[in-house]
Amino acid sequence: MPVGPLVDPAEAAALRADAQRNRNRIVEVARELFAERGLDVPLAAIARHAGIGVATLYRRFPTKESLITEVFADQFAACSSIVDDALADPDPWHGFRVAIEKVCAMQATDRGFSAAFITAFPDAITIEQERDRALHGFSELTRRAQQNGRLRPDFEQADLTLLLMANGGIIAESTDAAQAASRRLVAYLLDAFRANHAEPAEPLPPPAPLNLHDILRPPTSSSHTRSMP
Amino acid sequence: MPVGPLVDPAEAAALRADAQRNRNRIVEVARELFAERGLDVPLAAIARHAGIGVATLYRRFPTKESLITEVFADQFAACSSIVDDALADPDPWHGFRVAIEKVCAMQATDRGFSAAFITAFPDAITIEQERDRALHGFSELTRRAQQNGRLRPDFEQADLTLLLMANGGIIAESTDAAQAASRRLVAYLLDAFRANHAEPAEPLPPPAPLNLHDILRPPTSSSHTRSMP
Repeated sequence: MPVGPLVDPAEAAALRADAQRNRNRIVEVARELFAERGLDVPLAAIARHAGIGVATLYRRFPTKESLITEVFADQFAACSSIVDDALADPDPWHGFRVAIEKVCAMQATDRGFSAAFITAFPDAITIEQERDRALHGFSELTRRAQQNGRLRPDFEQADLTLLLMANGGIIAESTDAAQAASRRLVAYLLDAFRANHAEPAEPLPPPAPLNLHDILRPPTSSSHTRSMP
Repeated sequence: MPVGPLVDPAEAAALRADAQRNRNRIVEVARELFAERGLDVPLAAIARHAGIGVATLYRRFPTKESLITEVFADQFAACSSIVDDALADPDPWHGFRVAIEKVCAMQATDRGFSAAFITAFPDAITIEQERDRALHGFSELTRRAQQNGRLRPDFEQADLTLLLMANGGIIAESTDAAQAASRRLVAYLLDAFRANHAEPAEPLPPPAPLNLHDILRPPTSSSHTRSMP
């Protein structure tokens, strides 16, 4: 094996492997912290949880946006797939309904993703493209479900944003409770979106165990990060 | 005018007036900051905005809870009145509908209030009593509207929490847009809560100017306060 004048190739390979491990570790930790606390988690906290220096983190991800892009790339792609599947559904209203249920379930599982979805990333072309694809697909889905007569004609594209924001407001102490609450909210809203109430509605999923007295103030990231540097 | 051995009474009165002014100023500033940023605003930031020392603030309000109680006392009372008015409505469904619309409009105007509403205040007896009164009243309103046949029988008390959380998720760049979005969300949900869809629904308020690309990540208090001490 030829040896370079400055760095042993084996050593170089080890360094590269090390760099890759660091990168993976950062992305993994960031995914967990974003999911739990939203996007406000400081990069310093991510570095600390990953057990690496802040300088190393900045070398891999010079901006927070570059890290967010890497963390959520799969989920943005998943979102587009959900819409593609819905467009392939022969029943447009069923496609519309299932797409909304799936996207809202994703959102209820991952606080970071919903924040990422409504944040503008002017420099992250891939994310912007995936989101545009998802939004255009959804718009087509809306058109078909309305043409089909099952979706009320006064449903507007902005109502998707409304729904995602409302769903994003559902915060419970456990992910299970949040998901149950999200399912019920989405069922109510889908019921309201129906054009034709002569048809029987889908039964509501059971109410989530939400109680005003039990529910703490939504865990905004600040309450977690306040003690962080 | 008799003069005491230590403090001139005129001076004492001036000091008392000063203390009262400070107190009012703190409450006023706290009300603004809570409304804008939620309850996570640090007491130090409130003191700074009020132009007084932190020590003075702590002397007037030894705990954050005592300050929150003072700030939101009127709104908790307003909430109870809304429910009382609804209970006095001869049409239980109309009472139910108007109560929800009014409470959600309050919530859309004031980020602090909705956080205060779902936070437990074990030591603030007045707040807990007002909230209990509002919740019991709402529960009675639910019972009457269901008995009356206009509210769907599977609506549960936990769905009020769900609705308040969903409405709390509506954050727009301007209060006007947030209020318009909240009105539309509430109209959709009230539509879904109806038992009898043979009756004509209320027309939807116009869609709010929400756009995924325009909407910033919800302004969690941390993004405002991160630079604060």
